[in-house]
Amino acid sequence: MDTAILLCSCPDAKGVVARVTGFLHTYGANLVHADHHADLQSRTSFLRLEWEVEGFGLDAASFHAAFAPIASAMGMEWTLRFSSQPSKVGILVSRQDHCLVDLLHRFSIGELPATCAFVAGNHEEPGAIVRHWEIPWISLPARTGDEGSKAASEEMVLEAVRREGVELLVLARYMQVVTGRFLSQVGIPVVNIHHSFLPAFKGGKPYHQAWERGVKIVGATAHYVTEDLDEGPIVSQDVVRVSHRDTVDDLVRKGRDLEKMVLSRAVRAHLSHRVIRLRNRTVVFD
Amino acid sequence: MDTAILLCSCPDAKGVVARVTGFLHTYGANLVHADHHADLQSRTSFLRLEWEVEGFGLDAASFHAAFAPIASAMGMEWTLRFSSQPSKVGILVSRQDHCLVDLLHRFSIGELPATCAFVAGNHEEPGAIVRHWEIPWISLPARTGDEGSKAASEEMVLEAVRREGVELLVLARYMQVVTGRFLSQVGIPVVNIHHSFLPAFKGGKPYHQAWERGVKIVGATAHYVTEDLDEGPIVSQDVVRVSHRDTVDDLVRKGRDLEKMVLSRAVRAHLSHRVIRLRNRTVVFD
Amino acid sequence: MDTAILLCSCPDAKGVVARVTGFLHTYGANLVHADHHADLQSRTSFLRLEWEVEGFGLDAASFHAAFAPIASAMGMEWTLRFSSQPSKVGILVSRQDHCLVDLLHRFSIGELPATCAFVAGNHEEPGAIVRHWEIPWISLPARTGDEGSKAASEEMVLEAVRREGVELLVLARYMQVVTGRFLSQVGIPVVNIHHSFLPAFKGGKPYHQAWERGVKIVGATAHYVTEDLDEGPIVSQDVVRVSHRDTVDDLVRKGRDLEKMVLSRAVRAHLSHRVIRLRNRTVVFD
Amino acid sequence: MDTAILLCSCPDAKGVVARVTGFLHTYGANLVHADHHADLQSRTSFLRLEWEVEGFGLDAASFHAAFAPIASAMGMEWTLRFSSQPSKVGILVSRQDHCLVDLLHRFSIGELPATCAFVAGNHEEPGAIVRHWEIPWISLPARTGDEGSKAASEEMVLEAVRREGVELLVLARYMQVVTGRFLSQVGIPVVNIHHSFLPAFKGGKPYHQAWERGVKIVGATAHYVTEDLDEGPIVSQDVVRVSHRDTVDDLVRKGRDLEKMVLSRAVRAHLSHRVIRLRNRTVVFD
Repeated sequence: MDTAILLCSCPDAKGVVARVTGFLHTYGANLVHADHHADLQSRTSFLRLEWEVEGFGLDAASFHAAFAPIASAMGMEWTLRFSSQPSKVGILVSRQDHCLVDLLHRFSIGELPATCAFVAGNHEEPGAIVRHWEIPWISLPARTGDEGSKAASEEMVLEAVRREGVELLVLARYMQVVTGRFLSQVGIPVVNIHHSFLPAFKGGKPYHQAWERGVKIVGATAHYVTEDLDEGPIVSQDVVRVSHRDTVDDLVRKGRDLEKMVLSRAVRAHLSHRVIRLRNRTVVFD
Repeated sequence: MDTAILLCSCPDAKGVVARVTGFLHTYGANLVHADHHADLQSRTSFLRLEWEVEGFGLDAASFHAAFAPIASAMGMEWTLRFSSQPSKVGILVSRQDHCLVDLLHRFSIGELPATCAFVAGNHEEPGAIVRHWEIPWISLPARTGDEGSKAASEEMVLEAVRREGVELLVLARYMQVVTGRFLSQVGIPVVNIHHSFLPAFKGGKPYHQAWERGVKIVGATAHYVTEDLDEGPIVSQDVVRVSHRDTVDDLVRKGRDLEKMVLSRAVRAHLSHRVIRLRNRTVVFD
Repeated sequence: MDTAILLCSCPDAKGVVARVTGFLHTYGANLVHADHHADLQSRTSFLRLEWEVEGFGLDAASFHAAFAPIASAMGMEWTLRFSSQPSKVGILVSRQDHCLVDLLHRFSIGELPATCAFVAGNHEEPGAIVRHWEIPWISLPARTGDEGSKAASEEMVLEAVRREGVELLVLARYMQVVTGRFLSQVGIPVVNIHHSFLPAFKGGKPYHQAWERGVKIVGATAHYVTEDLDEGPIVSQDVVRVSHRDTVDDLVRKGRDLEKMVLSRAVRAHLSHRVIRLRNRTVVFD
Repeated sequence: MDTAILLCSCPDAKGVVARVTGFLHTYGANLVHADHHADLQSRTSFLRLEWEVEGFGLDAASFHAAFAPIASAMGMEWTLRFSSQPSKVGILVSRQDHCLVDLLHRFSIGELPATCAFVAGNHEEPGAIVRHWEIPWISLPARTGDEGSKAASEEMVLEAVRREGVELLVLARYMQVVTGRFLSQVGIPVVNIHHSFLPAFKGGKPYHQAWERGVKIVGATAHYVTEDLDEGPIVSQDVVRVSHRDTVDDLVRKGRDLEKMVLSRAVRAHLSHRVIRLRNRTVVFD
């Protein structure tokens, strides 16, 4: 079933749902999903509406013309997407390929509503499996401690993002810190997987930190990347039990499964147009 | 904040959300929550709308007069509730009191949007804690295998339900099977906790069955009671890990925590007007 | 079945398990459980052995005489406990009574291998339910910001611990920080429940902190109390999912269930002689 | 660290642990892990002992000679394995390749203590990814409803198992029922993943069954294959929450993640020599 998805947020006011659903009804929309959330603290309303394209009286251009005045009157930010036009995704990776292989397999069986436009990495090893699935591989020169190679890498990624029209960048265990300059230029959301239950164990070697502290549960966190490292809005988290029997290596192993699961859930939620950011928090309609 | 809650279901049709939210908007409703679900298989729409009473232009009686024609035109079943009018609940119990104590404590700290009108039990032991919380205790004569005592017990419960205007009956580990005659007469929903992950291990001694089968996880299930034992619509389920080290007694102990949690979640969802039944399934807006 | 439980730790060396189980076998022990853990980093061995008292050739005194030389030769720390001699526990509480009621109910149905010698609290409200279960209630004068009342309270608790021969003190949402002086004098383990997934959200108002950060999961942590607040060895942790729909009040409510579960698991593990501390970590044989 | 692993079970008797650990100590074993379980119902003892090879006085042959008489006296069944001699595994697959890709990636990063000797499948699609990882691919003629093609396929698998010296066969969503004749001839354990929380939803289309029943949680089960379909001893299970919003397709998608996780855990436990069968149950030392 082809659907259209409207994702919007606006200052809380009476009649937001009635007006937007009334507008859609005027043009014959058959709603499949309607999600609403009112954040009482910030007094903001969030809406996600999904309806069948068949029988709906507006295309993308005429929707814009007809809806923009209404949205504007409500101070609304909004995006309209069509399920028939899947997003394009770019992936960055370093040496460890478990999140990468997990994502590429999901693309290969059609589980994610998107196509993978390229994978770029600063280690050569993952290139082979990327080529197996016939996805373009970009070899990045980035080396830790070498600012020049890093700047060149970011330039290559920016160029690929623009060339391919990529709409989401996924850091699938990419171990280089992305710069503020890159983030301000790339202009699309960037999702990262951090291998701890944030805000616990920020920074490097979180599994070592977790082992030292003697926690009984470890976690993983997928979040949008902002200039503040490990402080971006959280999209998805999950945890797994550990015990005194688990060494740091066991934590790393158990963590890999978490990282795959949590990153893929966040990527899927974003690509299904289920996530709206509100400052440092997220609304995830799932 | 005082709110009104409209819970409704109707055959799928274009404009259901628009019409209902449009109606509410006409009378000045400020929506706090709007939930919608379209079941594609049965082609049924479900809605839960919650709005502030303050500033809304209709009271219960005038709402009924104004909304009934609209609802009727859409073939809609609906109920309207006010958060300021908490439901009344009756509880049935046998010897084991863990679910009972758990629920009564939740009532005592105001966690459940309801009051407990009575507790009725066919064992005397739980009476003392019920009286501690100053709730009426009804002593039931029901004894396993004695049909007369059972019929008399059901009559006593029916009488109490009617006298108190109870709207939900909770079987908190009540070990007597309720009769079809009772169910047809009581006229209010009855929620039961079954100590297994249904549909696995129906019937008696589910923890023994689980141990014999060697499962690695056990569960508990809260469901509405129907004439088919253990086959009613499921409201809530949860599970806990077990291992070869756990004896049947350990399963029983771990299960108690599950039973408390799962039953209280189901009771809370029902009392918050978040549950709609569709044949043998439930929509739970949470 | 009456059992004896030997809990011990010693520097790693060949033959630790063989020597200790060989010793027990010499006196006819029928092992029910044998747990062993070798911590490779600290090169320490941990053992928990449980055997039937019936048919075992040593009583507590003669065990000590016979085993002490062997233990000493291995540099071993050890404790011997009998299941027929349940521990005594003291509980401290403030206004919120959900962990208290949960623990007292578990005592009442014999789920915890111990008796509750007293409950002491700096708010009067929990006194009634404590008396319902016929447990001595001690009214503490501690008021936040009043050091004199706090010192007097700690003195009263110390006195009760000594008088009753209490072996474990449980802080069941006791909202006063216990002093280093108290900890050094009390001479028994103190278990606390912190309402966050430590080390995230240390200190006050953890659910508010969690809401602000926009996490998708919240947790609770039971730990031994040390002078470093919220830094003591962790015994048990658990988590629950939250979403953008949950307000701080919802987090508090969901957290209550976690706190009850996690604290009772930690208390049960400790009282079953399943926990050994190694610096800031714990070995929990479960 | 190279280790030896002794896995054994015998009728319960005094001194089992002491005798076996005493024997190992005699030859200088440095124990890394010692696990023990006494099943009270069947009066059986289970032991898993792991020690460093370095400094141990017996090789495989001399261990057998020295230990056999002791084991025999205790009526013990036992196996001795060395971590330096990884097992060989064969995998059967049909069209869906998510469990296969998951397992092969784990082999590729050294997460499983084994090598994959071959993958055999009755659909051609998975062949390409198998060849990518340079593992032999066997194309099976089995077609549903064609007994001849099925018998030929089983013959080919038997031949491959024998030729390669495979010690574990993994059914990674192999959709053909294996025959009793095959099971009796193959002579090695066979692990299957069933896409439900057994014993709920045995047989075909378990996700459809689960949706129809309206459960709030779905599961997956890894078990040893016996002649009774879906009745074999369970090694691992896990679950995931579902809601009224999930269609059967959503259950299938969520289930894939469960299946991968649960099957890989069971395979890892078996290959780490952590599983002992006792009739229709398993002891899993993890």
